[in-house]
Amino acid sequence: MVKRNPSLAKLHSGYLFPEIARRKEAVLVCNPQAKMISLGIGDTTEPIPLTIVEGLKQGAINLGDVNSYQGYGPEQGIYSLREKIAEVFYNQHLTPEEIFISDGAKCDIGRLQLLFGPQVKMAVQDPSYPAYVDTSVACGQTGHFDEEKGLYDGIVYMRCLPENNFFPTLDFQADVIYFCSPNNPTGAVATKEQLAQLVAYAKQIKAVIVFDAAYAHFIQDPFLPKSIFEIEGAEEVAIELNSFSKIAGFTGVRLGWSVVPQKLCYDDGQSLNKDWNRVTTTFFNGASNIAQAGALRALTPEGLAAIYDQTKHYLVNAHKIKAAFSALNLPCFGGEHAPYVWVQFPGKNSWEMFNELLERYHLVTTPGSGFGPAGEGFLRFSAFAQRKDVEEALGRLKSLRV
Amino acid sequence: MVKRNPSLAKLHSGYLFPEIARRKEAVLVCNPQAKMISLGIGDTTEPIPLTIVEGLKQGAINLGDVNSYQGYGPEQGIYSLREKIAEVFYNQHLTPEEIFISDGAKCDIGRLQLLFGPQVKMAVQDPSYPAYVDTSVACGQTGHFDEEKGLYDGIVYMRCLPENNFFPTLDFQADVIYFCSPNNPTGAVATKEQLAQLVAYAKQIKAVIVFDAAYAHFIQDPFLPKSIFEIEGAEEVAIELNSFSKIAGFTGVRLGWSVVPQKLCYDDGQSLNKDWNRVTTTFFNGASNIAQAGALRALTPEGLAAIYDQTKHYLVNAHKIKAAFSALNLPCFGGEHAPYVWVQFPGKNSWEMFNELLERYHLVTTPGSGFGPAGEGFLRFSAFAQRKDVEEALGRLKSLRV
Repeated sequence: MVKRNPSLAKLHSGYLFPEIARRKEAVLVCNPQAKMISLGIGDTTEPIPLTIVEGLKQGAINLGDVNSYQGYGPEQGIYSLREKIAEVFYNQHLTPEEIFISDGAKCDIGRLQLLFGPQVKMAVQDPSYPAYVDTSVACGQTGHFDEEKGLYDGIVYMRCLPENNFFPTLDFQADVIYFCSPNNPTGAVATKEQLAQLVAYAKQIKAVIVFDAAYAHFIQDPFLPKSIFEIEGAEEVAIELNSFSKIAGFTGVRLGWSVVPQKLCYDDGQSLNKDWNRVTTTFFNGASNIAQAGALRALTPEGLAAIYDQTKHYLVNAHKIKAAFSALNLPCFGGEHAPYVWVQFPGKNSWEMFNELLERYHLVTTPGSGFGPAGEGFLRFSAFAQRKDVEEALGRLKSLRV
Repeated sequence: MVKRNPSLAKLHSGYLFPEIARRKEAVLVCNPQAKMISLGIGDTTEPIPLTIVEGLKQGAINLGDVNSYQGYGPEQGIYSLREKIAEVFYNQHLTPEEIFISDGAKCDIGRLQLLFGPQVKMAVQDPSYPAYVDTSVACGQTGHFDEEKGLYDGIVYMRCLPENNFFPTLDFQADVIYFCSPNNPTGAVATKEQLAQLVAYAKQIKAVIVFDAAYAHFIQDPFLPKSIFEIEGAEEVAIELNSFSKIAGFTGVRLGWSVVPQKLCYDDGQSLNKDWNRVTTTFFNGASNIAQAGALRALTPEGLAAIYDQTKHYLVNAHKIKAAFSALNLPCFGGEHAPYVWVQFPGKNSWEMFNELLERYHLVTTPGSGFGPAGEGFLRFSAFAQRKDVEEALGRLKSLRV
């Protein structure tokens, strides 16, 4: 039969979250009565605000009437939604043609690898969301996994640790730099000065920045940048990803967007926007029109107010989690302008600590080492949970001694 | 700046349907009063049956209540939907674990290229739906476009013409064979004997068949196979793609599925199903849960009856189109068990004929040559249209003299 794709064969283990689900199931088999609480995966728990549900419902109803029925939409998304995103999130500094609606940021990360091809060298924050590295490996951009180092050859890992305030040293060569702020998993938010440094450095080494802003809506401080395009000149070096998942409860509905500015060019002067359009029209067929109808509703004044309430809810959870670990005298980070709290357990490794919380407290978290070797010794606590569950979990943890 | 992906640079022109839209717009600019009728793109026009709309609506409503809210679903799709598809379409000969829910067959075609990697050589029906070739080129499986031949180097084009009853000569070497039946664009349906030959040949040359069954529901003859898995042993060589797009009006809602049998292995004995699961969990994040709720409704007895009525509606259109061209004494094919009629215009080339129908009759069709060089001289007429539009279009064409 056919040979296996050698790049897929390089992927050294299951995707992080399925592995966590497997371990959780294993504990439940032995303890069927256990009341598991998950502060693990960043999965929304609050219902979609009713004004947005109305938009989704109306989207469905319209498809049942021959006069309002729509078949295929543009692969790039409904134009009015692209316009609305330009207006609401980018103060019209970007044109609708620079905004592409998608079925979510994770899927866009994968399709971006098709834009770049196997020849590029990537740089990625360590720790980081696993999809950047995994899609890069699967697309043939890397060498093999080095079991000893816990790293793939051919990738630049930008270490982000408490020691450097989670902002990496810019001293490497790469073609594509993945940068997520507010960060998943550390919750760190880059300042304007830091992002200006990053943009200047990308220009210097002729790299493209893929700026993942999926958590930007959690930023409360008006002086912290919510978009890479707040930095002058960024539209010559950066792509941005964003999503409705965490702000409108759309994790299962699936809707995100990417921004590929017209000014972003290859070394031969050709436009990345044009190639991204080609990738979008060839590998994708548009996000669900029902999801898009919901998103249009989410961007009305009423919808935006509801989004604001949702992010507030999760931020209050984050603040509670952070306060609880601070009270336990554990070093903890993030959780101010991000829905993740990054807790260090000195002298422990991540999976050990993960297992202890899972088995003893029936609490699902995410092991920091799953996000890269610089995450070793940390756990990520997600604020995406119902308030009562957060409070119960923190109550259980009062007896924790590390 | 970064270098352009050389494989993307090989793609020689815009995706077919955007090009058609461009030409249509150009005519409308000169003739703003023209009443365009489209028998072009295979885009559904009938509203979604109300019983299925109810399922979509309920899917949305459930997301507005904390007790029924769901965030991320499994990347492979809701398990009950995978079960239901196994039961309804495969008579339980396949397990739910072999069925993966997606956002549509076109997107699955793209992700399948990631499964195979750049090393494989593809064989494709000529003519065929452009996404097979375009995604293969973009993923680095091919050589350059040969302008003279209108073909990419490194792809096997299996010529499907009236002379061979649209079934290719099996005399080539390839790793992956794309085969679509009922065929888009020719409307040809392979018999059981032909598919048995194809399966035997794939085994002989150690190739994987990607069987695109997106139009299988249009087959009326119980002796014609609706799935490659009706052929004995096919589960050792074939993947199947299918979709709710054309049967339930889901072109904009986005929902399809792929079948990757457990028995399908690489030459080293590893399982393609396992790798497909990895690709699905890494490059995809699940189809919209609202779309899946609608699909579950579509597979109830009431939903299936409504689907049957929709396919019937389009088939009646197809029969009318075929009768009209037969009356004009033009060779025409398909349209019996498929929503496409493939009409030959002896002595004309496809874009010439496309332009004539567009400019003179304000009728949008699809030029056969857009599907590959063996489509030259043909136009594809899509039955996806409202009945009154089909009738008006055929009325206009009564004066056609070729």
